Amino acid sequence: MKIRIVVPIISDVFNEEVKKEVAQFKAPDTVIDVVNIPKGPASIESHYDEIVASVPIAEMVVQAEKDGCHGVFVDCFGDPAVDASRELVGIPVVGAFQPAALTAMMIARKWSVVTVLKNVVPMIGDLARRMGIESSLASVRDVDTPVLELHDKGVLESKLLGQIEKAVVEDGAEAVVLGCTGMLGLAQSLARKMASKGIPVPVIDPTASAIGYLELLVRGGLSQSRIAYMAPPHKERRF
Amino acid sequence: MKIRIVVPIISDVFNEEVKKEVAQFKAPDTVIDVVNIPKGPASIESHYDEIVASVPIAEMVVQAEKDGCHGVFVDCFGDPAVDASRELVGIPVVGAFQPAALTAMMIARKWSVVTVLKNVVPMIGDLARRMGIESSLASVRDVDTPVLELHDKGVLESKLLGQIEKAVVEDGAEAVVLGCTGMLGLAQSLARKMASKGIPVPVIDPTASAIGYLELLVRGGLSQSRIAYMAPPHKERRF
Amino acid sequence: MKIRIVVPIISDVFNEEVKKEVAQFKAPDTVIDVVNIPKGPASIESHYDEIVASVPIAEMVVQAEKDGCHGVFVDCFGDPAVDASRELVGIPVVGAFQPAALTAMMIARKWSVVTVLKNVVPMIGDLARRMGIESSLASVRDVDTPVLELHDKGVLESKLLGQIEKAVVEDGAEAVVLGCTGMLGLAQSLARKMASKGIPVPVIDPTASAIGYLELLVRGGLSQSRIAYMAPPHKERRF
Amino acid sequence: MKIRIVVPIISDVFNEEVKKEVAQFKAPDTVIDVVNIPKGPASIESHYDEIVASVPIAEMVVQAEKDGCHGVFVDCFGDPAVDASRELVGIPVVGAFQPAALTAMMIARKWSVVTVLKNVVPMIGDLARRMGIESSLASVRDVDTPVLELHDKGVLESKLLGQIEKAVVEDGAEAVVLGCTGMLGLAQSLARKMASKGIPVPVIDPTASAIGYLELLVRGGLSQSRIAYMAPPHKERRF
Amino acid sequence: MKIRIVVPIISDVFNEEVKKEVAQFKAPDTVIDVVNIPKGPASIESHYDEIVASVPIAEMVVQAEKDGCHGVFVDCFGDPAVDASRELVGIPVVGAFQPAALTAMMIARKWSVVTVLKNVVPMIGDLARRMGIESSLASVRDVDTPVLELHDKGVLESKLLGQIEKAVVEDGAEAVVLGCTGMLGLAQSLARKMASKGIPVPVIDPTASAIGYLELLVRGGLSQSRIAYMAPPHKERRF
Amino acid sequence: MKIRIVVPIISDVFNEEVKKEVAQFKAPDTVIDVVNIPKGPASIESHYDEIVASVPIAEMVVQAEKDGCHGVFVDCFGDPAVDASRELVGIPVVGAFQPAALTAMMIARKWSVVTVLKNVVPMIGDLARRMGIESSLASVRDVDTPVLELHDKGVLESKLLGQIEKAVVEDGAEAVVLGCTGMLGLAQSLARKMASKGIPVPVIDPTASAIGYLELLVRGGLSQSRIAYMAPPHKERRF
Repeated sequence: MKIRIVVPIISDVFNEEVKKEVAQFKAPDTVIDVVNIPKGPASIESHYDEIVASVPIAEMVVQAEKDGCHGVFVDCFGDPAVDASRELVGIPVVGAFQPAALTAMMIARKWSVVTVLKNVVPMIGDLARRMGIESSLASVRDVDTPVLELHDKGVLESKLLGQIEKAVVEDGAEAVVLGCTGMLGLAQSLARKMASKGIPVPVIDPTASAIGYLELLVRGGLSQSRIAYMAPPHKERRF
Repeated sequence: MKIRIVVPIISDVFNEEVKKEVAQFKAPDTVIDVVNIPKGPASIESHYDEIVASVPIAEMVVQAEKDGCHGVFVDCFGDPAVDASRELVGIPVVGAFQPAALTAMMIARKWSVVTVLKNVVPMIGDLARRMGIESSLASVRDVDTPVLELHDKGVLESKLLGQIEKAVVEDGAEAVVLGCTGMLGLAQSLARKMASKGIPVPVIDPTASAIGYLELLVRGGLSQSRIAYMAPPHKERRF
Repeated sequence: MKIRIVVPIISDVFNEEVKKEVAQFKAPDTVIDVVNIPKGPASIESHYDEIVASVPIAEMVVQAEKDGCHGVFVDCFGDPAVDASRELVGIPVVGAFQPAALTAMMIARKWSVVTVLKNVVPMIGDLARRMGIESSLASVRDVDTPVLELHDKGVLESKLLGQIEKAVVEDGAEAVVLGCTGMLGLAQSLARKMASKGIPVPVIDPTASAIGYLELLVRGGLSQSRIAYMAPPHKERRF
Repeated sequence: MKIRIVVPIISDVFNEEVKKEVAQFKAPDTVIDVVNIPKGPASIESHYDEIVASVPIAEMVVQAEKDGCHGVFVDCFGDPAVDASRELVGIPVVGAFQPAALTAMMIARKWSVVTVLKNVVPMIGDLARRMGIESSLASVRDVDTPVLELHDKGVLESKLLGQIEKAVVEDGAEAVVLGCTGMLGLAQSLARKMASKGIPVPVIDPTASAIGYLELLVRGGLSQSRIAYMAPPHKERRF
Repeated sequence: MKIRIVVPIISDVFNEEVKKEVAQFKAPDTVIDVVNIPKGPASIESHYDEIVASVPIAEMVVQAEKDGCHGVFVDCFGDPAVDASRELVGIPVVGAFQPAALTAMMIARKWSVVTVLKNVVPMIGDLARRMGIESSLASVRDVDTPVLELHDKGVLESKLLGQIEKAVVEDGAEAVVLGCTGMLGLAQSLARKMASKGIPVPVIDPTASAIGYLELLVRGGLSQSRIAYMAPPHKERRF
Repeated sequence: MKIRIVVPIISDVFNEEVKKEVAQFKAPDTVIDVVNIPKGPASIESHYDEIVASVPIAEMVVQAEKDGCHGVFVDCFGDPAVDASRELVGIPVVGAFQPAALTAMMIARKWSVVTVLKNVVPMIGDLARRMGIESSLASVRDVDTPVLELHDKGVLESKLLGQIEKAVVEDGAEAVVLGCTGMLGLAQSLARKMASKGIPVPVIDPTASAIGYLELLVRGGLSQSRIAYMAPPHKERRF
């Protein structure tokens, strides 16, 4: 199975880490490559960033299908351009929010998200409401750190531990989703540290869920419903 | 009060009709102009059309604020780029779905939408679910007519009457929203014709609601919450 | 356009202030008058007060239509007798809750109400649940002050600032509605003071929203659905 | 235990039948009397009828407490003035909707109401939404018969059988509530006739549920929460 | 009326107390007996305990019908095997959760449960969500005490008072349900003590509600819908 | 990865077919074995069948963990004993409903289930409501065929095609889940036949989703939350 990861920012700063991350989680016969978008934002932290990234993302998804990929992961927690891309191709396309949310709902009744900045907190609420799953979402918290400052893993881990604990103790979360795909390589260590504090809360890495979901769909012969995501009518479009 | 209408397509085919329509509905001291987007789709009938239109829409909204407008109506029922635009300006920005939906909820408990094509039916459901108002939405129906073929008003009116009747009789709608801003100049005549058939159902023109809502917000000194729509962080964005 | 405001209490203590308030918010061609009810309570702070006021309110609404008014605002946050009045007339009738709530939902995803007394907190929850919008209502708070003691604006403003801050910081509100139509002349100053504390939260005056909504409906040729609000059958009624 | 039934209309046309009905359903130690209201409507079939009946109902409830009653049943499916009455007395007050709905939810997941006229269909939806139980309400149907024409039991039963069958087969109801307290003496016979058609659907008489619920509350030492229904503040009220 | 209480544990430690409790709440013509299950757990505090108890419970319910009982109370707050038992008999079967929840919804808009251990908190949430009533459930709290240690009434009462107060003040509960049928003989004294602290919150004993509900159903000629709970098809079952 | 499938019936009639089915869907490094339960029902078509199967299922899950399995699939669409089993082991346990439902929610907004008999239709509704996902569930339909008569694939396929078409056309489903794990080997052929009729609806085989989900969880180092599924307290249990 050939899966393409579209990291929807103009820099390749996360690419190596993403490759390393997915290598641990993928099935042995899954081949993965990682690309960026040629135009768009340096990171995605607003509705505005999402629309700036959207047309380039859709173009990369179309290219992935042409290149014979079996599935595409749009590697951003806001699921930017995922709906539009699903209209354009036959292969399954997933973002990071949906797979992580649906994984959380399998292993817990109530779950929380810990994301980067207050700016995106209402956007994540929108995603949950749009799917009709908001009643299981205990809370959305943030570590008050922009995407491009996530590289200091020590500081990040400490902030995440604090917010995860609050999500469980104050908000009633039974599982926690890391709410930015830039929070790489931390989920399992966070879960271990929480468990050692007496809080056995699963911590979900959205990248792992996305790859797992694509494998599930491809092996099951499934893709997005063409009743839900009809091909766009032909017409003039000026870029 | 100075309001700008951004018709988010590359042709000005609807502009004159929009001007005529709003002239009937606006307050006497409201001054309105109508612009298009320089790049984008010929019409909006898919998620893909929405992302193609989004950056140009946001640019026109920013320009409207620079030009001293007091509010902007993004004249499309899918509310494309409305969230992103709200992050970029201080003046109120509305699309067509939200004002029409919130007008329907004022005058009826259950309401339906009649839109253009099956393609956009699930998109309208998304908008309602995202706002948490889906329990009052009785149904979304369509007249199976692309936006650019709405000009034959006789055919359109007859199809609309059929779907409006079904919305009331089969789905329980107490009010009906015309689900495309291209369905101009018909709402009041449709309501009269339905009433003469013994079905006194209000028919809501989303354009009228949008202008009324902007007047309400501007006179009330209100705009979108900057807690809900924070300004995007500064960063590199490549177009 | 001629709009009548029915202040549903037996004293005219609020009438001048209401007139001054609406003068700022209305369109230039809107003519407004303000009346009281001849029988009923001194203020409305319970279900019991609502039923005591209801028949007199309905009579004043019927009179307004006879007097050629184009719309009626029942000037109380509990929307007393609004449903019954809508059954009796063809012109649009609004209370204060619905317009304020639907304005909040336009500019924010989550909103709170700050009202007068604990007594009415569950009543406001009822209004939101009945409309199916409770999922967007972050909280209902009170300033522990009866309606007839709202005149001390200094004390009131200070209590409101405290509760608005809690609504935003603790409950997640992105906009706040003043939950009593006796809280006049404060919304914009409260919003400015909150903004100067770093909390840019819109504060919605329900009176301004109600007038704006009536203008929207009247200009759009709309009124309450007669499918939702059928005329009461003829029968004996003894008063 | 002493229970008073307030039939909230100005005629005693239903009183004897009500007494006969409750005699079958009450516990042996329950003593029941039936009163009317001195002013109000001839029947309740609109929001307007409800407000016309409300103050007289509340007065009769207060009198019942003074007379040493242990509970009051406001004998109308719209629960008119029940909230206001609960604020005024310490003894439990119930209408007909709530007990019937909560009985249906005990014995079935999905239930429907069959009521008198289209006019009251949206009012019953309001009652369900206000309690947050609308997701279990399969449908509200009507027999298109005014309250004061329910006396022809043969016609009524035949219309009810038709609507009950549709509620089960088309709407998915697993139990059906008779949606007017004037539909007396029919529930068990309707259930038998449905069962003999191969549709074993329980039919709930709201009068039986109301009496049973009052007995449950009184024996359990319970009444409406005074946190939910606080006593109205003292003030001038002019009648 | 003959009602059987099935205490679904292998010890009779609670039986005498249950008999004393119900003697206060039942109607004079209701005859009650209490039985245990011959196999199963010592107490029910997990999904696992529920499945261990389930087949023995169902057998006792079948026996109750054979013995001429008119109704059965499965005396556990988790409603174990209630659905399965309802499929097997014609007489009404209730657990403790549903009657208590539906009683709370009659007397309050928002209610909380105080139960024994954290283990069962998510199970109670499941029961509420399954019935579609979770929006009225303010919170589920626990006293951190296993079922078999509830006998120290002094300690228990003090812990319950603390959690009930938090349910009202922090969570917005207007009524509180004791979330374990082992919390016998305390509801009315707890309510009095809360009232004397200025918090007039009704406290609901699930045993009293269950008996009251069975009386309501039996007197009303009602039982679980056989559309909702069809008899299991004949087939081989090996025990 | 070693996965055990527990087919929770006393006969091995489905085992070979299950093995063949999963061989197509599993990853190359996944090793799967299939076992039955020694006691229990011949098939599961009622709440009663579920409780009869539950303790044996839990015992087989515990044994699977002892045998070094990495995950367990309880191969029944009603998810019997899944919650209880999750309390007993550290490895992930899934039934068939949850994985299929969460797969449907990834590829469609609205989805339907087509199951075996009317008896289990309300049970499937319970599962959806309990997870808070009922708003995306368009309908539950049945082919009126007991589990043990599913072997006539020709008849079954034809009935399924009929119900799937109704789910899409009448109920608005965008994807359909086969609601019994005995409906093996049909999903892809059903999807092809529907597509050839102009209805491109994905058909989800719950077995494929369950295996895919277990692979996702095991590769991601995840299992059910021990906050949601705490280990049962030690106590006497008599079998």
